[in-house]
Amino acid sequence: MPYVNIKITKDGASAEKKAELISGVTDLLRDVLGKNPQTTVVVIEEIDTHNWGIGGETVTRRRGQGS
Amino acid sequence: MPYVNIKITKDGASAEKKAELISGVTDLLRDVLGKNPQTTVVVIEEIDTHNWGIGGETVTRRRGQGS
Amino acid sequence: MPYVNIKITKDGASAEKKAELISGVTDLLRDVLGKNPQTTVVVIEEIDTHNWGIGGETVTRRRGQGS
Amino acid sequence: MPYVNIKITKDGASAEKKAELISGVTDLLRDVLGKNPQTTVVVIEEIDTHNWGIGGETVTRRRGQGS
Amino acid sequence: MPYVNIKITKDGASAEKKAELISGVTDLLRDVLGKNPQTTVVVIEEIDTHNWGIGGETVTRRRGQGS
Amino acid sequence: MPYVNIKITKDGASAEKKAELISGVTDLLRDVLGKNPQTTVVVIEEIDTHNWGIGGETVTRRRGQGS
Repeated sequence: MPYVNIKITKDGASAEKKAELISGVTDLLRDVLGKNPQTTVVVIEEIDTHNWGIGGETVTRRRGQGS
Repeated sequence: MPYVNIKITKDGASAEKKAELISGVTDLLRDVLGKNPQTTVVVIEEIDTHNWGIGGETVTRRRGQGS
Repeated sequence: MPYVNIKITKDGASAEKKAELISGVTDLLRDVLGKNPQTTVVVIEEIDTHNWGIGGETVTRRRGQGS
Repeated sequence: MPYVNIKITKDGASAEKKAELISGVTDLLRDVLGKNPQTTVVVIEEIDTHNWGIGGETVTRRRGQGS
Repeated sequence: MPYVNIKITKDGASAEKKAELISGVTDLLRDVLGKNPQTTVVVIEEIDTHNWGIGGETVTRRRGQGS
Repeated sequence: MPYVNIKITKDGASAEKKAELISGVTDLLRDVLGKNPQTTVVVIEEIDTHNWGIGGETVTRRRGQGS
């Protein structure tokens, strides 16, 4: 019955890649902790690089797109 | 002073329905736990079906829109 | 398939009250948005009043327990 | 290594303002709690006023845009 | 730079199992989406079964511990 | 009306330091984005180092307490 929230920067991850991620996380929770896949929920949120900061800077700026 | 975060799949819920949900959750917290409605915050997030997984599959695929 | 996260201050809500809240939120999502109760997940988190702030002050202080 | 999630209503905050907020929160965590800025992550989420409720009403309605 | 939040019921998962989960999720994000493991953050939260609901009932009750 | 969730490792931050953090974040949101302090909510969550991972490892292990 786990709930997993994955936040990533919005970089055009394809529907196939996101499906693979959801499937992989669900399997991992079954294999490591014995969690029931049927009730495992995974929600992916894609965040604009202007809205994500690390080291006090936005990702936009760190990637050199901000200047 | 509760904070409620509701994540649902993006299925075109109308502004009226969302207002009704916000009002209903706020009332419920007052009725069940005696929480002050004035400081109850409710945030609804609507998630693309490609980004929501249950049972190891995306909702897109479960609904048969993914093939 | 909604996921609801409810954060409240830790004030000794009983197991019965929390069960009532979970049941009420699940019914509301079914009644207002037609969501399937079987896959509706509700997680309640109870937060220490030292860790909850509103209006720039902790709830502990607002309640006059902090001085 | 803190993780900070800031939810605000979507009101057209500029990239500059958001960068300033990220930088300010990161500095605050260093100054108050001695947290390492290099591993401090800040994620800003901008929420539609139809999806944000306080006092049992949506922000849209409170601002008188909903009638 | 992903941030992953995993909520599970509090069932005595060992430190070793949790370390394995953190490592597995981090690898998965690298393998599927090419995310940098060095800045991948994973936070596990363990929730009391009285505070977790699915299908309108607490997990406590579903497991027959609540009657 | 912002909502801020701050997750930090559980390292014995004092009530005073947490109050200072809450006050500082609230001021920052007022100064940078003009947000109303009266309806700004800040919730701090303190996470066990066994439950926090970065770079694929738990913080416990990174700090050399895990071996």
